[in-house]
Amino acid sequence: MIKANPAFMACDTDYEDAKIVIFGAPFDGTVSYRPGTRFASAEVRKESYGIESYSPFLQKDLEEKNICDIGDLDLPFGNARRALDEIYKNTKMIITDSKTPLMIGGEHLVTLGCVEAVYEKYPDLCILHLDAHADLREDYLGEKLSHASVIRRCYELIGDGKIFQLGIRSMTKDEDLFAQKHTYQCKYNLSKLDEYLEIIGNRPLYITIDLDVLDPAFFPGTGTPEPCGISSIDLINAIHKFSGLNIVAIDVNELSPHYDHSGVSTITACKMIRELLLTI
Amino acid sequence: MIKANPAFMACDTDYEDAKIVIFGAPFDGTVSYRPGTRFASAEVRKESYGIESYSPFLQKDLEEKNICDIGDLDLPFGNARRALDEIYKNTKMIITDSKTPLMIGGEHLVTLGCVEAVYEKYPDLCILHLDAHADLREDYLGEKLSHASVIRRCYELIGDGKIFQLGIRSMTKDEDLFAQKHTYQCKYNLSKLDEYLEIIGNRPLYITIDLDVLDPAFFPGTGTPEPCGISSIDLINAIHKFSGLNIVAIDVNELSPHYDHSGVSTITACKMIRELLLTI
Amino acid sequence: MIKANPAFMACDTDYEDAKIVIFGAPFDGTVSYRPGTRFASAEVRKESYGIESYSPFLQKDLEEKNICDIGDLDLPFGNARRALDEIYKNTKMIITDSKTPLMIGGEHLVTLGCVEAVYEKYPDLCILHLDAHADLREDYLGEKLSHASVIRRCYELIGDGKIFQLGIRSMTKDEDLFAQKHTYQCKYNLSKLDEYLEIIGNRPLYITIDLDVLDPAFFPGTGTPEPCGISSIDLINAIHKFSGLNIVAIDVNELSPHYDHSGVSTITACKMIRELLLTI
Amino acid sequence: MIKANPAFMACDTDYEDAKIVIFGAPFDGTVSYRPGTRFASAEVRKESYGIESYSPFLQKDLEEKNICDIGDLDLPFGNARRALDEIYKNTKMIITDSKTPLMIGGEHLVTLGCVEAVYEKYPDLCILHLDAHADLREDYLGEKLSHASVIRRCYELIGDGKIFQLGIRSMTKDEDLFAQKHTYQCKYNLSKLDEYLEIIGNRPLYITIDLDVLDPAFFPGTGTPEPCGISSIDLINAIHKFSGLNIVAIDVNELSPHYDHSGVSTITACKMIRELLLTI
Amino acid sequence: MIKANPAFMACDTDYEDAKIVIFGAPFDGTVSYRPGTRFASAEVRKESYGIESYSPFLQKDLEEKNICDIGDLDLPFGNARRALDEIYKNTKMIITDSKTPLMIGGEHLVTLGCVEAVYEKYPDLCILHLDAHADLREDYLGEKLSHASVIRRCYELIGDGKIFQLGIRSMTKDEDLFAQKHTYQCKYNLSKLDEYLEIIGNRPLYITIDLDVLDPAFFPGTGTPEPCGISSIDLINAIHKFSGLNIVAIDVNELSPHYDHSGVSTITACKMIRELLLTI
Amino acid sequence: MIKANPAFMACDTDYEDAKIVIFGAPFDGTVSYRPGTRFASAEVRKESYGIESYSPFLQKDLEEKNICDIGDLDLPFGNARRALDEIYKNTKMIITDSKTPLMIGGEHLVTLGCVEAVYEKYPDLCILHLDAHADLREDYLGEKLSHASVIRRCYELIGDGKIFQLGIRSMTKDEDLFAQKHTYQCKYNLSKLDEYLEIIGNRPLYITIDLDVLDPAFFPGTGTPEPCGISSIDLINAIHKFSGLNIVAIDVNELSPHYDHSGVSTITACKMIRELLLTI
Repeated sequence: MIKANPAFMACDTDYEDAKIVIFGAPFDGTVSYRPGTRFASAEVRKESYGIESYSPFLQKDLEEKNICDIGDLDLPFGNARRALDEIYKNTKMIITDSKTPLMIGGEHLVTLGCVEAVYEKYPDLCILHLDAHADLREDYLGEKLSHASVIRRCYELIGDGKIFQLGIRSMTKDEDLFAQKHTYQCKYNLSKLDEYLEIIGNRPLYITIDLDVLDPAFFPGTGTPEPCGISSIDLINAIHKFSGLNIVAIDVNELSPHYDHSGVSTITACKMIRELLLTI
Repeated sequence: MIKANPAFMACDTDYEDAKIVIFGAPFDGTVSYRPGTRFASAEVRKESYGIESYSPFLQKDLEEKNICDIGDLDLPFGNARRALDEIYKNTKMIITDSKTPLMIGGEHLVTLGCVEAVYEKYPDLCILHLDAHADLREDYLGEKLSHASVIRRCYELIGDGKIFQLGIRSMTKDEDLFAQKHTYQCKYNLSKLDEYLEIIGNRPLYITIDLDVLDPAFFPGTGTPEPCGISSIDLINAIHKFSGLNIVAIDVNELSPHYDHSGVSTITACKMIRELLLTI
Repeated sequence: MIKANPAFMACDTDYEDAKIVIFGAPFDGTVSYRPGTRFASAEVRKESYGIESYSPFLQKDLEEKNICDIGDLDLPFGNARRALDEIYKNTKMIITDSKTPLMIGGEHLVTLGCVEAVYEKYPDLCILHLDAHADLREDYLGEKLSHASVIRRCYELIGDGKIFQLGIRSMTKDEDLFAQKHTYQCKYNLSKLDEYLEIIGNRPLYITIDLDVLDPAFFPGTGTPEPCGISSIDLINAIHKFSGLNIVAIDVNELSPHYDHSGVSTITACKMIRELLLTI
Repeated sequence: MIKANPAFMACDTDYEDAKIVIFGAPFDGTVSYRPGTRFASAEVRKESYGIESYSPFLQKDLEEKNICDIGDLDLPFGNARRALDEIYKNTKMIITDSKTPLMIGGEHLVTLGCVEAVYEKYPDLCILHLDAHADLREDYLGEKLSHASVIRRCYELIGDGKIFQLGIRSMTKDEDLFAQKHTYQCKYNLSKLDEYLEIIGNRPLYITIDLDVLDPAFFPGTGTPEPCGISSIDLINAIHKFSGLNIVAIDVNELSPHYDHSGVSTITACKMIRELLLTI
Repeated sequence: MIKANPAFMACDTDYEDAKIVIFGAPFDGTVSYRPGTRFASAEVRKESYGIESYSPFLQKDLEEKNICDIGDLDLPFGNARRALDEIYKNTKMIITDSKTPLMIGGEHLVTLGCVEAVYEKYPDLCILHLDAHADLREDYLGEKLSHASVIRRCYELIGDGKIFQLGIRSMTKDEDLFAQKHTYQCKYNLSKLDEYLEIIGNRPLYITIDLDVLDPAFFPGTGTPEPCGISSIDLINAIHKFSGLNIVAIDVNELSPHYDHSGVSTITACKMIRELLLTI
Repeated sequence: MIKANPAFMACDTDYEDAKIVIFGAPFDGTVSYRPGTRFASAEVRKESYGIESYSPFLQKDLEEKNICDIGDLDLPFGNARRALDEIYKNTKMIITDSKTPLMIGGEHLVTLGCVEAVYEKYPDLCILHLDAHADLREDYLGEKLSHASVIRRCYELIGDGKIFQLGIRSMTKDEDLFAQKHTYQCKYNLSKLDEYLEIIGNRPLYITIDLDVLDPAFFPGTGTPEPCGISSIDLINAIHKFSGLNIVAIDVNELSPHYDHSGVSTITACKMIRELLLTI
């Protein structure tokens, strides 16, 4: 495996020795509003040097962990299924090698490729889903593989009562009704996180964080900003609660750097990824 | 009446059948600091498609309401009185036709034209005023028709104890003293909203929202950003309390799109307008 | 037909009475570098009011022409073929009604849908192609319907020696070799325009202008800016030479407004469209 | 007279000793498209330190000249006539003191106040007008004091055959016809400059440079950018030809810094002002 | 002493009569991430006119205070020691004249020059330090005079238990350990401010505010934005608690205007400076 | 040697097999106006994928060359001499290994480190210098190692009549006089390039391109933009003339990505570097 150089800060362990493997999934082909998340992983890697590798919250340093950043996958534009297959293949390799993948999107659809691979290994998989949008549409303008229906596709795979959604504040009426029947859904904030984590218990857990769960004040650099969200402190506090869970894969997605004129959204993504890496 | 096409999302009912009528008032001729609110209504209309027409807060959809968006008024630059006359005339028509107007500014002065028309029909009119600035100056550099004196002009029309100001955090000493005598004024936040709404009761109510009542973190795209304001969640919660009031007209103003590089302020304006439309 | 309101400036003739019909094709699903051309037609329409409707070059005014702007087509994201079919259908209608379509892209792939319709009516169709890029790839990362292969697809339809390319300055080696055999190609500038127009003569002509033919100094707001191009004056002079040709359809594409921070690229697009409308 | 501190670079001679007096006229109340020129003079002053005070073209240095920068006038927003009166009064003082004023706008209307003062002293005044727009409208939306009619107002003052316009490329049909009868007008470029300067001869000359005469590639930071203009080199070459003329006042206007994201327009304004100061 | 003209709003008292003296320290030579704070003081001065001189919080007006703004020091680029010496010399003069200096940075290193001067006069000096970063490094890439080690240098001067840090959320492990032994440090927020102010009591106090203590949502325009900080309201509330302390000097630093696209960070800096000036 | 991953497009040959070696020199510590060139090399590497690896001008492809991109040097902030020593050491290694270095700055001072190494090997070294600024100051505010005096330092090394400057349009009077005595200097444009290349003949040649030689219309993203420069076409034509020279090292500097909002300057840098790599 060829490593990224420069890698995400302090994540330059060789693949063989790594416990955690970072990779980028630069795909945004189904985006309905403002595209550009394809540029996120490269930007995150580059800007990660703007913060420290040490977390005072956790009193740990990335230097002490064995993390390998293998760079970005080579994904085709405008063909969602082929892109997902590449992501599937790569995730499969990493978990087969008994390492934990952390994928940096890309639009939210990329989650599906990763979940498909992880679900094969862990049939009792649960998904923890932080997002502003429910992503539960049956289809979007006729397309089933869409960022707006990715969690619906995951649902079809893993089934009822396995998906725990938090921070959700935008949806159609149909999605609202669907969630009431088939998923756990905490609207607007993360107030039910403790409750949900207790229900999840020790089951294998996939965590997917759509960064637009953050209020656009804290995270303007995203494709479909949705006002009235949570703060950076809310999110970092939530991440710190992930410690001790049976996490089998993580993704962080929907940073769109070209709408991040101040660079603050990118730095926020970097900090959340650092905390996630130190928490696993 | 010619409709805007595209209109504000899902607001394409014919004028005759509409209960609510949206129009834009693209005027910013008296602005003292950063101009550009003249571009707000067109931008709001265009970007409204970035959010859903369904509100999970209210469990209602704009599709179910009868709303007509008649587009922007044709207002002269640099002649405040003539612009206000156009706004007056248009508002008069809408309320005569027993519909509720929702005006998208423009600078805050546009409120005066609308209030003049509404006050003629409802002499016991109250005004609910959300803003960072008191807008109570006698004049601004000698001009009486100014965004900084618009509420003072409204006061002269409707009189003592009829104006309820919230979120106010910028003023001159004179305005501070004036407010103590003549208006209800809740400084810095919306903590007295419940109390004020009770006082207002069932009287006809004009609601004017200067979006700079929001903290610039949540709403940077405005002419005179004033730090230390309220959050988007504070504002949306306030809007939800407007349900059941006797609202006769609404305006939302002071979005300045050219200072909204991330587009987040515009989307916030769109969301607040959606909630207002669903609350009336 | 419903008209756009506001329409492109002074283009509000009813469809039935119009000689020229403007429509937008907001699609950018196959873009390889910076997306966002989906926002172009709405922005062009809105900003067209920043210039005059009168051309001192041509001493004509848009007010004197019969032009209808029918707004934007409703195109699916992430499904190129379905989007092209919509464009085809709409173009077919316009030319069947004996009107001349002017399409505002979107990415360059949209040209294909329009050419398919026009070619059915005019089997001896020629294409005049102004662009920085040859767009002659067999496929792009396996996809045949790509902005990078659109002219190749057109070539397959209309055949050898019918395509006249100017301003081309970026290509692969394969495209370079292909052009030498199958198209007329004037590299870097428009120096062979007179020669090409003479060869074309009175044959039915489709004109497609990828605005990135302009140097990025004059037109930064595009997805794949390519330095060392032509100036705005070069382009407007070329447009003035189109007078008297047998033009059956025109498209102008690849404006990406979110990269046009100063708004200058959008205004340039507006001005070129005005001159095209007045030249036809 | 209080001097600006910091002043335009190297222009800190005391008023009494100065031959040339710089002042700012921060007014943009009648602007029809994008406002913001009110911020120009402060920005020019601040950014002037980004270039050298020495001109290799002229082999002269601002340090060697006696120039006083008295800062910005205090102009009322939204009252054009009062603003013009302030400008008139200030210009009157400077020329009465036998100094040459160089005014930094502001929108183009500010020229009128300055011309009114200068014309009183020099009844055979000529005006050299570099601009993209003719500015010859009878009125703009009913307003006679408008940036779009400023040269018409000047014409009414100084009469036929005294106004020499260059670079003009945007106008209404009426303005086009008016210019044919009443002004010298060189469209699109500066090709007739030598000819015009010869006609002007030694008569007292007012020079007004609307910086949008520059192509937006070279000068994006302006309210109404108009493509197909002249280059920076064209403009600086023209300025160098002003040497030896009987210049009685100069203004440079229409820089709008908030649209100048790269800062390049502001620097260009600074450089042109430096060359003008060294040429007088 | 020459005054700035225009000065920070309403701060144009003559030096001799002033109680408080404002000066700028435009130096950013040791910055590790995004430079540009050298432009802060000029920008703050210019934009201060966007807010009122009256504080409704304190019911006081800057007009009533005697404050002199002497403009920016002339500091060499790329030589930290020489820049600090200039700052030292200037501060020395001000405090010798029994006035209180308020310095606007510049990067945080500028604090050292000011502290050196103040400490000479007040050997029992305490420092109140609001910041996102601990700034306690022994050196940064071998350089001892660095923005990242400025408080460490101050510590070496004034000694143990004299430094009170609040809001700190970024540091290396070494800095974390150092702080535990040698400084008071309140991580993440200002919750220990009351406690610290009680400890400080009436001792002479230097207040240094690195504006990146604010969350980047509220203050994006800084060199090293660090998510998860305090809000503008938190900061202004803290400032109001400074009343009654024995403040001998203040600095406000790390605004980087070129990253402040919306201008909101600059306005926030202005407002905090206004409240500080009214609180002293 | 560790390679960059991703490298500059198509430059991923192993160091051992490479003929040309690319490296970045991210240093901007002495910049006097707008800093930020430290971010250039990473940005160039990332954005190089936005253009083709094939040059239609030269009919060659980077894929066919043996080029290794070894990434960025690790340079200390705020210590110019130590940074130059690192550059010297690295350049020394590359030329000792008989490869040609192409350095991407960084501010222009980085050239000195590279020249020092090359000059040791080639005592009859000539320098071809394309720039807007003469960079011939004896010192800048007392500092001898400054971007504004780098060519003066090179002159002291290699001596009279060995430096060929083109495009120069900004300088002090002293620099103007110095150049008349000691360097070849073609002001404003590249008109004397042929003449200079003939004089240089087959002598070992160092080429240093300060990209601000380009007019800011074509290259706004730089620290000290200087209007009235050359066009992109002028520069690429010049580069094509370098073929056949005895080039021993090249640098390209002064791209400042944070001022390159449209990304066009970065793409221009990429294209010029591609042509240079294919020309050597």
